[in-house]
Amino acid sequence: MTFSVTILGSNSAIPTLQRNPSAHLLNANERLFLIDCAEGTQLQLRRFKVHFQRIKHIMISHLHGDHFYGLIGFLTSLHLLGRKDELHLYANPELQQILEIQLAASRTTLIYPLIFHPLVSNNKELIYEAERLKVYSFPLIHSVPTHGFLFLEQHHSTMRVRNPRSYAYCADTAYSEDIIPYIHGVDLLYHEATFMNDMAANAKEKMHSTALEAATIASKAQVKKLMIGHFSARYDDLQPLLDEARSVFPETILAVDGEKTDIGK
Amino acid sequence: MTFSVTILGSNSAIPTLQRNPSAHLLNANERLFLIDCAEGTQLQLRRFKVHFQRIKHIMISHLHGDHFYGLIGFLTSLHLLGRKDELHLYANPELQQILEIQLAASRTTLIYPLIFHPLVSNNKELIYEAERLKVYSFPLIHSVPTHGFLFLEQHHSTMRVRNPRSYAYCADTAYSEDIIPYIHGVDLLYHEATFMNDMAANAKEKMHSTALEAATIASKAQVKKLMIGHFSARYDDLQPLLDEARSVFPETILAVDGEKTDIGK
Repeated sequence: MTFSVTILGSNSAIPTLQRNPSAHLLNANERLFLIDCAEGTQLQLRRFKVHFQRIKHIMISHLHGDHFYGLIGFLTSLHLLGRKDELHLYANPELQQILEIQLAASRTTLIYPLIFHPLVSNNKELIYEAERLKVYSFPLIHSVPTHGFLFLEQHHSTMRVRNPRSYAYCADTAYSEDIIPYIHGVDLLYHEATFMNDMAANAKEKMHSTALEAATIASKAQVKKLMIGHFSARYDDLQPLLDEARSVFPETILAVDGEKTDIGK
Repeated sequence: MTFSVTILGSNSAIPTLQRNPSAHLLNANERLFLIDCAEGTQLQLRRFKVHFQRIKHIMISHLHGDHFYGLIGFLTSLHLLGRKDELHLYANPELQQILEIQLAASRTTLIYPLIFHPLVSNNKELIYEAERLKVYSFPLIHSVPTHGFLFLEQHHSTMRVRNPRSYAYCADTAYSEDIIPYIHGVDLLYHEATFMNDMAANAKEKMHSTALEAATIASKAQVKKLMIGHFSARYDDLQPLLDEARSVFPETILAVDGEKTDIGK
């Protein structure tokens, strides 16, 4: 069974021609989940040949623009392309009004059901459950209310097929060991690494993390593999960030736009 | 003196990898004006190597997403990149709240002055005047309040250097001869041509125009040259739209993403 993540954007803040800002596509047994939706995400989905009407769930971590400015355009395109299936959106409740006034301004009534699930908990919360998958939200430490997401395979109720696999998404967040209980032992941890550690003071001030800090969390949480991303546009070459993280946690990889990673392999 | 328009997006409705939705960059004697700002416009500006901090005025024709969903991201990027100069925005007044609640959700206070000029008139209105240029808005006929824009060179106060040049932007609009007085005799008319004329009924229902209709307006308004754009994503090959328009108005060209057209040549 498929359990993979495709990176649609690995940059922070500002889109560049090399790296788009944050969006991940999780494929769990051919169920597609979109996690964050920066401006340009719908074009990234086209570029990487994702049949995007198959996405049924969208999780938005927080309301900084580089994580959601592509959402209204994506929702509108689904509408214009004739979507009928319901779509579930999990986000800070403020997002609902932002979407509604834009749809109202264009006199648009979506032709498919959009079901809004407000993220308000300050604790780990089960937000989605199906036969073989559970998804949890949990709080991160950032300048606005921010949630991480944990995707956890479930054993089929009647048979134990294999070890359940898991993926955790942590962006944006300051270095915080408080998140370790939520992500402990996951197969793949995505943790933001906006800066290198020579900018640790800057990272702390902006409530972001460094590559070294992401790796430290990965190590302390005893995860199997770490993926770093949300890179500052100042870094053309990402090898130094990878090297820095690997100095603490060797099983680190870089988020790269368009690359798919099989989780638990 | 420069008087040119660069197409940043020539598609309607949905962004594709070949054509982005609407945005034009007008260069009038090295003053830069952005007209409409679809999702992805900031990346188009990067792609076509425009020094986009030099843009001081943004005109938004109407509040359909394919004309403004890239605005909030562009304004935010200017902020993150340290803009200091004031920026003037001309748009339907509903846009102000749409921007404000998104900036509020991300706890962002722009570090540059953003000056909002609401477009409310149902007549031709002077919205900008400088020594050598006047810009007017005028009403178009569409399903939501929509404005066209007329850029008109002015003679220098003390000398008559050359014939003043002019550019009119008309998107989106149903076929309407009511707009002819606003655009009469311009050097370059941009007029939307979402469909070919075999879809005239569809165009009328959606308050768009066909290539034939755009050419008819160009002919009746006695403009020097017509540029058609805002093409439906159904058309991979645009030559039939060009041929259709040229059958009525030979001096027709296609809007092409990334192409610059010198006006009045």
